Amino acid sequence: MKLVSYQHPDLGERVGYLQQDHVLDLALAQAWAQEGGRCLAQRPFPVTMIELLEREGEGLRSAQELAATTASAQIAELSFAIPLADTRLLSPVPRPRSFRDFYAFEEHVKTARARRGLDIVSEWYQFPVFYFSNHNAFLGPEAEVERPSYTEWLDYELEIACVIGKTGRDIEPAEAHEYIAGFAVLNDWSARDVQREEVKVGLGPAKGKDFATSMGPYLVTLDELEAVREGERWQLEMTASVNGQELSRGNFHKIYFSFGELIARASEGVTLHPGDVIGSGTVGTGCILELGTEVHRWLLPGDVVELEVEQLGILRNFVK
Amino acid sequence: MKLVSYQHPDLGERVGYLQQDHVLDLALAQAWAQEGGRCLAQRPFPVTMIELLEREGEGLRSAQELAATTASAQIAELSFAIPLADTRLLSPVPRPRSFRDFYAFEEHVKTARARRGLDIVSEWYQFPVFYFSNHNAFLGPEAEVERPSYTEWLDYELEIACVIGKTGRDIEPAEAHEYIAGFAVLNDWSARDVQREEVKVGLGPAKGKDFATSMGPYLVTLDELEAVREGERWQLEMTASVNGQELSRGNFHKIYFSFGELIARASEGVTLHPGDVIGSGTVGTGCILELGTEVHRWLLPGDVVELEVEQLGILRNFVK
Repeated sequence: MKLVSYQHPDLGERVGYLQQDHVLDLALAQAWAQEGGRCLAQRPFPVTMIELLEREGEGLRSAQELAATTASAQIAELSFAIPLADTRLLSPVPRPRSFRDFYAFEEHVKTARARRGLDIVSEWYQFPVFYFSNHNAFLGPEAEVERPSYTEWLDYELEIACVIGKTGRDIEPAEAHEYIAGFAVLNDWSARDVQREEVKVGLGPAKGKDFATSMGPYLVTLDELEAVREGERWQLEMTASVNGQELSRGNFHKIYFSFGELIARASEGVTLHPGDVIGSGTVGTGCILELGTEVHRWLLPGDVVELEVEQLGILRNFVK
Repeated sequence: MKLVSYQHPDLGERVGYLQQDHVLDLALAQAWAQEGGRCLAQRPFPVTMIELLEREGEGLRSAQELAATTASAQIAELSFAIPLADTRLLSPVPRPRSFRDFYAFEEHVKTARARRGLDIVSEWYQFPVFYFSNHNAFLGPEAEVERPSYTEWLDYELEIACVIGKTGRDIEPAEAHEYIAGFAVLNDWSARDVQREEVKVGLGPAKGKDFATSMGPYLVTLDELEAVREGERWQLEMTASVNGQELSRGNFHKIYFSFGELIARASEGVTLHPGDVIGSGTVGTGCILELGTEVHRWLLPGDVVELEVEQLGILRNFVK
């Protein structure tokens, strides 16, 4: 199923799901189903995504049962269904509980380091490495991203986000899928000039990355992706374009460490919580830093950046 | 005033303040004052620290008025006052909204880098640098800190934490004090062997730091520290001891970048929120990495680590 967070005109931030190009509010759909005596859920549905995720696996299972009920109805019959085109979607998790971003695609690491005259270090192959970034600066699809005044090298990064849906610690790679609520497209906006200077001090990127991360449009649960799964990886083509010009193309299955391995690393000695977001890192060719400014200049106000991942949708943002 | 978060035997996690070696629950103190017709607050007091901080400046001001009222009472008269010795204190902010840790003491940077055969880079002097760490792994005073199974080089770090008490963005250094709710002692526990390997990849420390951060025992508001303030810095002696043996000694006023400058950097193009925690970085001599294992071995289960900062109290933790 495709879950969304959206801004309801009267009710504020809500969680819903997509059906027949409409957004169906989860709690309102439950009320509708109960009136018809068709609902199996034992208690009122959560109204926000984080509340849904905090019910761990049970929340998603109940939502899927509800979606099966509404799927058999005519959309016109559902007074609370809002056409997707009329809905303002938010980041699927508007305020993640935390945000870790990995660096798991070999091509990106090789090329980005080569641009700075550096080889890939042997440690990169030994264990997946991440940094924490600013979970308080998430934006949704169609949102404007303000170019910080202090950068002239604004870049996008084409990634996939995994949203945690179950509390866990010391999770084994083979069990990690149970802890994934779903995947979404992620853009880890970057100020390359700032990043280049600050990383010399040795604490990694911070101001180069903390001003904005966008995610969306949907959170897609793993059952939807079963047809394209190959073991621990998924065949999903990933592209990025700026002002309609395709710049980046890669595939999720090229990730060197699987999400199971990333989750295992993140949860070693540490508790993961529902609503934590884990980024894959940038796919090969997935940013201007890698391509070089001979292929495309850094981003400027007015640019439209579209990241597309098969089955996960298009994440479009506007540079302001 | 000295604010605390504590575990009330019946009411769970609560916010209180210290008076005459007792913890006074903020909401219960307000109810007591209202019964006596002495309270000036317009609405019920928050029950947790994060709720208090989210009222921004008004919350702390009301708490200070209340403390002035209870200060004139006999402690025996206040049925809700709990002797400090009988109270289980938590991290003053049990679940910070975020955690940034800076690297702002020159001596620590010089010595720690020299131990790895590296000079201090010129960028260090140009702007203060931080990394985000795991705000979901905070512990309080007297808590046990589990030594992760994957490290043999467990270390402490003697730091000062600043808790943000007001929403702000692009904050000027000279105005930054308005955004500080208070200071507390901070221990940024570190797994040096893990950190040493992962930082080679260039994303900074993550698993080397994410398993535990302890803070406390109190959150001390700036008015209490006015007598030791010298412009943008405070004269506060800082020491660390392991099993009663003093290993580290420094002073908060030696910080190279002031907290005003740290807050300015953190808030550039980014919104800070009440409940965000900002660490100073380690004071010179403030960890085993700097001292060398010829001075003290890495920490082992059974060790007692005490960090003390004048006026901010003693943060004691037990390695498990």
